Amino acid sequence: MFLRIDKLQIDMPVPKNPDPKAAAAVQELMGGRFGEMSTLMNYMFQSYNFRNKEKLRPYYALISNIATEELGHVELIAAAVNGCMYGQEPQGDMTKGDASFAHVLNTFPNLHSHIAFPHGAMPSNSMGQPWTGDYVFNSGNLVLDLLHNFFLENGARTHKLRVYQMTDNPAARQMLGYLFTRGGVHARAYALALEKLTGVQMAKMLPIPAVDDIELPESRKYMEEGWHRRLYRFTPKDSKDYMEMAGIWNGQHPDGGDLEVVDGPPQGGDMNDYEGISEAFTPEYKPEEIFEMATKLYEKAKG
Amino acid sequence: MFLRIDKLQIDMPVPKNPDPKAAAAVQELMGGRFGEMSTLMNYMFQSYNFRNKEKLRPYYALISNIATEELGHVELIAAAVNGCMYGQEPQGDMTKGDASFAHVLNTFPNLHSHIAFPHGAMPSNSMGQPWTGDYVFNSGNLVLDLLHNFFLENGARTHKLRVYQMTDNPAARQMLGYLFTRGGVHARAYALALEKLTGVQMAKMLPIPAVDDIELPESRKYMEEGWHRRLYRFTPKDSKDYMEMAGIWNGQHPDGGDLEVVDGPPQGGDMNDYEGISEAFTPEYKPEEIFEMATKLYEKAKG
Amino acid sequence: MFLRIDKLQIDMPVPKNPDPKAAAAVQELMGGRFGEMSTLMNYMFQSYNFRNKEKLRPYYALISNIATEELGHVELIAAAVNGCMYGQEPQGDMTKGDASFAHVLNTFPNLHSHIAFPHGAMPSNSMGQPWTGDYVFNSGNLVLDLLHNFFLENGARTHKLRVYQMTDNPAARQMLGYLFTRGGVHARAYALALEKLTGVQMAKMLPIPAVDDIELPESRKYMEEGWHRRLYRFTPKDSKDYMEMAGIWNGQHPDGGDLEVVDGPPQGGDMNDYEGISEAFTPEYKPEEIFEMATKLYEKAKG
Amino acid sequence: MFLRIDKLQIDMPVPKNPDPKAAAAVQELMGGRFGEMSTLMNYMFQSYNFRNKEKLRPYYALISNIATEELGHVELIAAAVNGCMYGQEPQGDMTKGDASFAHVLNTFPNLHSHIAFPHGAMPSNSMGQPWTGDYVFNSGNLVLDLLHNFFLENGARTHKLRVYQMTDNPAARQMLGYLFTRGGVHARAYALALEKLTGVQMAKMLPIPAVDDIELPESRKYMEEGWHRRLYRFTPKDSKDYMEMAGIWNGQHPDGGDLEVVDGPPQGGDMNDYEGISEAFTPEYKPEEIFEMATKLYEKAKG
Amino acid sequence: MFLRIDKLQIDMPVPKNPDPKAAAAVQELMGGRFGEMSTLMNYMFQSYNFRNKEKLRPYYALISNIATEELGHVELIAAAVNGCMYGQEPQGDMTKGDASFAHVLNTFPNLHSHIAFPHGAMPSNSMGQPWTGDYVFNSGNLVLDLLHNFFLENGARTHKLRVYQMTDNPAARQMLGYLFTRGGVHARAYALALEKLTGVQMAKMLPIPAVDDIELPESRKYMEEGWHRRLYRFTPKDSKDYMEMAGIWNGQHPDGGDLEVVDGPPQGGDMNDYEGISEAFTPEYKPEEIFEMATKLYEKAKG
Amino acid sequence: MFLRIDKLQIDMPVPKNPDPKAAAAVQELMGGRFGEMSTLMNYMFQSYNFRNKEKLRPYYALISNIATEELGHVELIAAAVNGCMYGQEPQGDMTKGDASFAHVLNTFPNLHSHIAFPHGAMPSNSMGQPWTGDYVFNSGNLVLDLLHNFFLENGARTHKLRVYQMTDNPAARQMLGYLFTRGGVHARAYALALEKLTGVQMAKMLPIPAVDDIELPESRKYMEEGWHRRLYRFTPKDSKDYMEMAGIWNGQHPDGGDLEVVDGPPQGGDMNDYEGISEAFTPEYKPEEIFEMATKLYEKAKG
Repeated sequence: MFLRIDKLQIDMPVPKNPDPKAAAAVQELMGGRFGEMSTLMNYMFQSYNFRNKEKLRPYYALISNIATEELGHVELIAAAVNGCMYGQEPQGDMTKGDASFAHVLNTFPNLHSHIAFPHGAMPSNSMGQPWTGDYVFNSGNLVLDLLHNFFLENGARTHKLRVYQMTDNPAARQMLGYLFTRGGVHARAYALALEKLTGVQMAKMLPIPAVDDIELPESRKYMEEGWHRRLYRFTPKDSKDYMEMAGIWNGQHPDGGDLEVVDGPPQGGDMNDYEGISEAFTPEYKPEEIFEMATKLYEKAKG
Repeated sequence: MFLRIDKLQIDMPVPKNPDPKAAAAVQELMGGRFGEMSTLMNYMFQSYNFRNKEKLRPYYALISNIATEELGHVELIAAAVNGCMYGQEPQGDMTKGDASFAHVLNTFPNLHSHIAFPHGAMPSNSMGQPWTGDYVFNSGNLVLDLLHNFFLENGARTHKLRVYQMTDNPAARQMLGYLFTRGGVHARAYALALEKLTGVQMAKMLPIPAVDDIELPESRKYMEEGWHRRLYRFTPKDSKDYMEMAGIWNGQHPDGGDLEVVDGPPQGGDMNDYEGISEAFTPEYKPEEIFEMATKLYEKAKG
Repeated sequence: MFLRIDKLQIDMPVPKNPDPKAAAAVQELMGGRFGEMSTLMNYMFQSYNFRNKEKLRPYYALISNIATEELGHVELIAAAVNGCMYGQEPQGDMTKGDASFAHVLNTFPNLHSHIAFPHGAMPSNSMGQPWTGDYVFNSGNLVLDLLHNFFLENGARTHKLRVYQMTDNPAARQMLGYLFTRGGVHARAYALALEKLTGVQMAKMLPIPAVDDIELPESRKYMEEGWHRRLYRFTPKDSKDYMEMAGIWNGQHPDGGDLEVVDGPPQGGDMNDYEGISEAFTPEYKPEEIFEMATKLYEKAKG
Repeated sequence: MFLRIDKLQIDMPVPKNPDPKAAAAVQELMGGRFGEMSTLMNYMFQSYNFRNKEKLRPYYALISNIATEELGHVELIAAAVNGCMYGQEPQGDMTKGDASFAHVLNTFPNLHSHIAFPHGAMPSNSMGQPWTGDYVFNSGNLVLDLLHNFFLENGARTHKLRVYQMTDNPAARQMLGYLFTRGGVHARAYALALEKLTGVQMAKMLPIPAVDDIELPESRKYMEEGWHRRLYRFTPKDSKDYMEMAGIWNGQHPDGGDLEVVDGPPQGGDMNDYEGISEAFTPEYKPEEIFEMATKLYEKAKG
Repeated sequence: MFLRIDKLQIDMPVPKNPDPKAAAAVQELMGGRFGEMSTLMNYMFQSYNFRNKEKLRPYYALISNIATEELGHVELIAAAVNGCMYGQEPQGDMTKGDASFAHVLNTFPNLHSHIAFPHGAMPSNSMGQPWTGDYVFNSGNLVLDLLHNFFLENGARTHKLRVYQMTDNPAARQMLGYLFTRGGVHARAYALALEKLTGVQMAKMLPIPAVDDIELPESRKYMEEGWHRRLYRFTPKDSKDYMEMAGIWNGQHPDGGDLEVVDGPPQGGDMNDYEGISEAFTPEYKPEEIFEMATKLYEKAKG
Repeated sequence: MFLRIDKLQIDMPVPKNPDPKAAAAVQELMGGRFGEMSTLMNYMFQSYNFRNKEKLRPYYALISNIATEELGHVELIAAAVNGCMYGQEPQGDMTKGDASFAHVLNTFPNLHSHIAFPHGAMPSNSMGQPWTGDYVFNSGNLVLDLLHNFFLENGARTHKLRVYQMTDNPAARQMLGYLFTRGGVHARAYALALEKLTGVQMAKMLPIPAVDDIELPESRKYMEEGWHRRLYRFTPKDSKDYMEMAGIWNGQHPDGGDLEVVDGPPQGGDMNDYEGISEAFTPEYKPEEIFEMATKLYEKAKG
């Protein structure tokens, strides 16, 4: 069972200018084979189908809890795409026959951004190809699933690094800086889980590729705050669920400091509220009526 | 941002016998076009891309909160599939050359259940076809998105009714009985949202098809407990998020009783813990070693 | 622009017993790579994109007109599937908790037949995989497109022969017997078109595979009536469209008799009207109300 | 059974300059989830699988007849794409080693336009993804299928409005102006059909989005001619098929004037005949020989 | 550049009875995400795109050479499927109207086996879903690609073990026994390559799952012959290509014996020649003519 | 069983400048429906499933041997793509926060080139859509399979001609010039095979389209060397395999000269070795360490 808090895991900046090409690249991190929908759904299904939960509680707890964090990562990628897309204004008036969004034919590499979606996030990759359940791996064999997850996190990191290289859009970079540290935590956690089962010191292989998060400016600030050492228990504070992952996530980080399990989620950042575009019908062509109705409902609900 | 509680929304029975054909039918409700992955992802993306959140707060709150409930529905479908699949035992010993799971070739309509997955839930439909992001609709136009959601819920209900007809497996039926009432709440909520925007009394069209939930034995008990009248706020109890949906979800249910918004999630039911199958390598061929290691971790984490 | 007549190209029998496995095989001829949706859409797109229509009128006319005949073939495959599926009755009463269609889990190889579709035709192949636009070939090069069409017709014939071998269901066989002669006409027409452009006597390669239609009992009756020698102009009788295909379709059939272009469509056969299944909600769970309403409309429309 | 007339439903202009980006956008209306191939195939399969045709004749007639009109809409989209693509000339001579279509690498967002297709329409969407049978919905439940169709028409309208905003290409706009009125007729017809079954006044929700067709210059002229009030019976004039839809399509249009069923199709417009491009091999590299052969055939056929 | 020898890597038995269900399971090892088409194409593309070949020659040689061995594995899976499918005889005579392959509707889980393919191997998985290029991973980062390959080999092994459990068909088992040892060599080779780059002793993780090849009767015989210790150079004997992989593949096998690089391919086994089925048109309905023609060609070619 | 030689079939130039748009077009020839992966896999599966090999040896030999040549064609397309992509340098330093590959967002039509692949060949078409096993045709009927292959080769030629028109990149053109002659050999070989079975003189239809290879400058040089007349036996020189195809491939070429079967492969050209891009992590971010390790291995292997 899941709960939601109307916050993002971090604050996100609102870029000054629309940058649909950056948005297209970021989409790979949403709906690509190594995007956050993939990490989310891999760990979710592994948690759903976990056998011998009681006997293997630390592993079950680890996978289940990381899955929950990934829900917030998907949301964060969506926020980054919305940030990159925001600000595409109409030019002219369609009721006078103007092609008021003709410019998007040149600026949007993904035409669905305007035709099918509201200049926002889509469940597809950088090429506009939809995410698919084929990306989920869940053999049920614990070592193999953990090995997969370790590989998946490193593949995801590589793709993120390359998207980092393709854009310095502030929304994209803020998200990336944060996710490098969080992905690093997940990769290390799966490495430790494997080590505890097999004795193989997988974590020595990190980072893949051989560039440290600390070398990336946007990631450095999160490192300095210690995000790379913390696993958050994404569960209500009065809950004791998933505590057992501390059996895996402990000891020292190679960069110094202790690995720690933190009770409850991080403080989080506020959701941005973007203006609609009435001429694109988001939320409506003549929005004043819809707002008036909503206002009444809102007052009534508050009242 | 999301939290997880290690419970299902309801208790689930453990069926006595494996029933892989029932599992195959239930998979449609997981990864089919009208399955719970679809309702989940449709509402999630609509919440990510929502414009003018502040001005249209009741609608934003409604969609965001139902999305969160759907996370638990996906989990429940997964639990039902696991229940249906549980108990497929090996026959013979592969290290003596026996084809210890030869029987699954005849009983599993979906061979991936054994080859690729651990006799559990898969992100695909009743035909083994993977769920795809193509199933997500999000125009950003509020009326159209709500109309879509109303249609989606009714399509989902129709498919559930037909799966109900195909199996009386107790795990499948427990889940179905519950989800008929919850899906009914969602359909009605979207109907009311549309009515408040357009004046069209969509709810009069319900139920689609024209069989009432109350007529279905497994659903009746939930009706009698009032589940069909309640929207739960799936957020921590100290949070005020999503309260504004009460502006939409209010008034009388046609079957009597008031529509109400309940703070916090339902009490929930315990997760079942299914035995692994060592010969299928879930979690491992020689599980005793893996259990021993895990026990040490577990003790350490608790300690 | 197209018109429709509420008839099939031939009369179709109503099989006494449901035969969902036969239906599954016949679906290949609907939505498979060599199914009628493919022949239809290949020729349609070739006609839409035809360049130099005036200068190459006989070829344009031939392709455009065969495309129109294919519309009726798709309809005929659908009728055959409906015939094969008809008669799957509910067993028990779902409102008493019965799994009233449990038997379809064993008899339907394609679960979508019951869950998503009304025991009828689907736009997918024998494996339940959807038809896709990837099956359309249209290079615009006339020789290559005709060569493709010649190959496509022979591939379609091979698949039909193999479906013939898999079932003697009377609905399937009636359709097949007829379509062997019509597909034979199309293969020969494309062969003649190629011969007139290149001098290569493609028709000498026929039949592929080397079994004659006349050897197949269900096809023989159509041969005896001369269907294998006639191209129908599927256009209103007062129209002169597509006459120019007579420049290609002329001369002798190797089995004797002249190739001829017939003005207007064949006489056709009546549509069958199958009973709905109220418990499957087709058209509705409580159908009497819906029928009453429809009756009023019907009377009014007639009146 | 179907007939074809070698006309389009309306006259189409020949744009002066090629505009492949406009063509790419228009492709969404061909092969996208809400494109005309989808409306066509949804209604076709619903008509093939219709149960209780006799008892529910007005509904059967309505769906069957709209399906037939959609055949002409697909053709019209194809004509618009051809119009947008026409005029891409070779630059240089490939037999001298020139890259005679190097410019298309920059101007064609969809490379298949040149490599696989003859600068014409393709069975795919604006992203070059093929149309798929997964887009077809046919539950067999009459209310649900009509609700789907109502949603589908409004989704299709939204996508068309957004394509309208992306281009003022005259071929695209002529098609759009016409299809706004025709799609409006279909949406209203399904709304009335639902109302007559359920009492819910769906038509009050129209238009979705909240911009009227009359506000769009290219649509206004069709409104003024009354196209938005007429359902054509797309059947030969001597046929009485589909008349029963008048039981649904009657009464007043909210903008004034009576809804009427017209016998036979509209008068239609002439097909454009575009020049081939010999260097692109459409229809052939050395076209004079092919034309000579065709001329002989043509004369013979006429003679 | 590649050469072919008309032999398989090992002799394959001809099973006495057709076993299409076994064939379906084996197909996963052909066209599944972890099938041999995947290992083949992953390593092929990694070899095509390898940068700094000269500086990293041992790695380039290893990947390139294993890719070549995989070509023979694909061929071997195909041979196993053909073995499993062989012997499905017609029952009756289609020219008398018999449904001569009606039995395959019940025995073939994959209807394409008869309709589209000649009772043989298909480029698809156990569910009949086609292999796709999406299964290829090639980041270009050497550590990550090797980690992927190590994971891929272990995933492939797990799927093979589960197919082993599903059938004791002699053709399937012969192939599996052999491929367990060969896949083991590849997994170990990638482990050693990773170890030499990162110092992490990946090979200690093997075998995954924790059942040794030596425990499986069909694999034991190959182990006893030392196949699990040998990398063959799949290149002509006079070629020195790929020798550098000896820099990675050296030292002791944990089960004893030295790892060795063998010049040239193994001796191999004879291709089986299966009888055609004339009634299924493989190779033709009236095969005697085709044989007569071929005989003449054959004599001439030999002559 | 297959062998590999570390050479390409011809020498390939290294273009001076990167040309990712050319690369995108060339990808159609890799992973498109008519790309080399398709010709490869069609002939491979036809050879795997060939029935009555002994009786039909010349046909089996022809198909098997052409399949082997196609392995080298796939490799050549990959080399052409690598040539087109080579030279995309980073701009700036990501560890200073620079978007060092921002320029690829504008120059790469396929974003996977940078995000997922190392600026190299991908198993997908010009639109970035993955190759799929659906492209394989293998009915087992010899005439139909040969007819398919003849069509496939001509479709492949048409697509190659159009890619030729889209770019004069020297790597692309070198590959194309060569493959026009080789594809021409394959088309003619299948034509002759068909003629010998059916008497129909298919070769008279060539070339399709009607532009001769000799007219294309890059192809002319290969024609002058006689490549269009030679079938190479891609098998070790001491092997007698596949000789029987000489029964089909004999007589005169219409342009003069005898068709001949050559023992062994052509001499071939050297592999190019492209520099890695450390900032893109190919093979690694800090490559000096990886090179040092590899050097040691290399020396040891040579030693």
